[in-house]
Amino acid sequence: MARRRPRIAVTMGDPAGVGPEILLKALAEPALRRACTPVAVASRALLERVAAHLALPMPAELVEPAMPGFAAAALEPGRLSAAAGAAAGACIEEAIAGCQAGRYAALVTNPINKAAIHAAGIPFPGHTEWLAERCGVQGEFMLMYHRRLAVVLTTCHQSLQSVPASLSPQRIAAAGLALARALERIRGRPPRLAVCGFNCHAGEGGLFGDEDARLVAPAVAELRRLGLSVEGPLPPDTAFSPANRERFDGHVALYHDQGLIAFKALYFDSGVNVTLGLPIVRTSVDHGTAFDIAWRGTASHRSLVEAVVLAARLSR
Amino acid sequence: MARRRPRIAVTMGDPAGVGPEILLKALAEPALRRACTPVAVASRALLERVAAHLALPMPAELVEPAMPGFAAAALEPGRLSAAAGAAAGACIEEAIAGCQAGRYAALVTNPINKAAIHAAGIPFPGHTEWLAERCGVQGEFMLMYHRRLAVVLTTCHQSLQSVPASLSPQRIAAAGLALARALERIRGRPPRLAVCGFNCHAGEGGLFGDEDARLVAPAVAELRRLGLSVEGPLPPDTAFSPANRERFDGHVALYHDQGLIAFKALYFDSGVNVTLGLPIVRTSVDHGTAFDIAWRGTASHRSLVEAVVLAARLSR
Repeated sequence: MARRRPRIAVTMGDPAGVGPEILLKALAEPALRRACTPVAVASRALLERVAAHLALPMPAELVEPAMPGFAAAALEPGRLSAAAGAAAGACIEEAIAGCQAGRYAALVTNPINKAAIHAAGIPFPGHTEWLAERCGVQGEFMLMYHRRLAVVLTTCHQSLQSVPASLSPQRIAAAGLALARALERIRGRPPRLAVCGFNCHAGEGGLFGDEDARLVAPAVAELRRLGLSVEGPLPPDTAFSPANRERFDGHVALYHDQGLIAFKALYFDSGVNVTLGLPIVRTSVDHGTAFDIAWRGTASHRSLVEAVVLAARLSR
Repeated sequence: MARRRPRIAVTMGDPAGVGPEILLKALAEPALRRACTPVAVASRALLERVAAHLALPMPAELVEPAMPGFAAAALEPGRLSAAAGAAAGACIEEAIAGCQAGRYAALVTNPINKAAIHAAGIPFPGHTEWLAERCGVQGEFMLMYHRRLAVVLTTCHQSLQSVPASLSPQRIAAAGLALARALERIRGRPPRLAVCGFNCHAGEGGLFGDEDARLVAPAVAELRRLGLSVEGPLPPDTAFSPANRERFDGHVALYHDQGLIAFKALYFDSGVNVTLGLPIVRTSVDHGTAFDIAWRGTASHRSLVEAVVLAARLSR
């Protein structure tokens, strides 16, 4: 049985943040080790320093990429630096390359600091763009996952006014299809999907904008043609009501706040961020580097445990 | 003491819907009668019919406006008709006129059916527009109220693309001021307000749209100048997190779904709808006519009780 467990790469994130601490805590969790064989992708010296400081065990498996010039002993917790950004970046590159070469079944990322990454001369605004570039793909989607609510974002970081021009029936349907595939792997059965409308009341029959009829309804029709169980466009304000959260396994949101207002009102800080549409499985914690509490022993590793367990399920 | 209780007009709503039943149930509630002296504004014959059918007591006080041609004995529950729309309309007119003349301290409305109202030749799409027209005001705002979350909508029923042109620092500040005044009357102390941003991450320093800097930040500054405790523009997705719901007494949302996605995810069907910016106090239940369960004895009157109690507090 043991050899069937997927090997999951877990990056340390920015070493000056909470990443190293929650990585050590999470990889010691029996629930996580039952689900997979975790591999820490990190600076060994840095992890040893944090482990000694907090009296935590070192991971059973650790891969250390080359980090020229990184001085683990000199790093200050909570302090933004190019050295920390570069070290975090080296771990990400190793984890991506390892997934592509088949050494890991999936990749779980700890938080990085955008400014530290930029200071290290790395051009990516975040993990997602980094992965898309290395995998040579476009059209990835962010999924926020909690066992009670799964929301994929059709569009993400852009102005609200620019959203309709970024939406097309094809793109909305692609987001729905990616969500359906992920949920089927997680739950083992075909999911029931809800597609949110764009305007209030889903346009109320054309009274409030034409996007619902022009963009969303054709996407729902296309998803039905593909054999999926799907409803929409749903009035966005009631799409996330208790009854609709029971009725549907997953929601397609059309813009960042439409999906995340609901998700964060209900399940703040306890979700897992999943990147859909990549050739490799990638999940992430749902929080930032939290420099202010780095290496103190107080950071919660719950989101990381859930991210690793979900990555194991998605990589089946 | 008894004579100090405000007299609150409660309209029956569409008589073929759940309005008459929940009116009878709510007006029999001791909690409601401790808060005010409720006055049913309704067809007496219709209420007597429903009261006999469901073995409910008649209200102690009832005002019946003229309803030429309305045959209470012939009305079918659950059936849309112009006669029902006209009768509902007559009650609304009496309640508005009574508030304006000082006979009632506030007005609480039961749900009407838009199509029935139109069939009766009444030109208003809903109560709010009706009230604004009769009071000769513009610039009213919808507030969704629950004791744990209060959200005012700066704009309401319009396409999402048309929202920025409808927003101005003045209008956002007016919504915030109306919210602050209502909350101060309800809670008896100056409230702490949150103003949501327009774009995701509140624009992330201009990266995602200019509305947050151009429209929202000046409104927040103006509210501060007026002496209010206010923060914003807040990133909309975290504005409704558990921690921010604790920190703030009320939220200013900039568009319909921004506020109502959060409200309905958390407090579906248990809120009260309040119209701010009118010279009269008006609250309403947070549900529709529910024709499918009319006169069956199963409709919940909780939202109506809360709407009446809140109207009594707002009319202090």
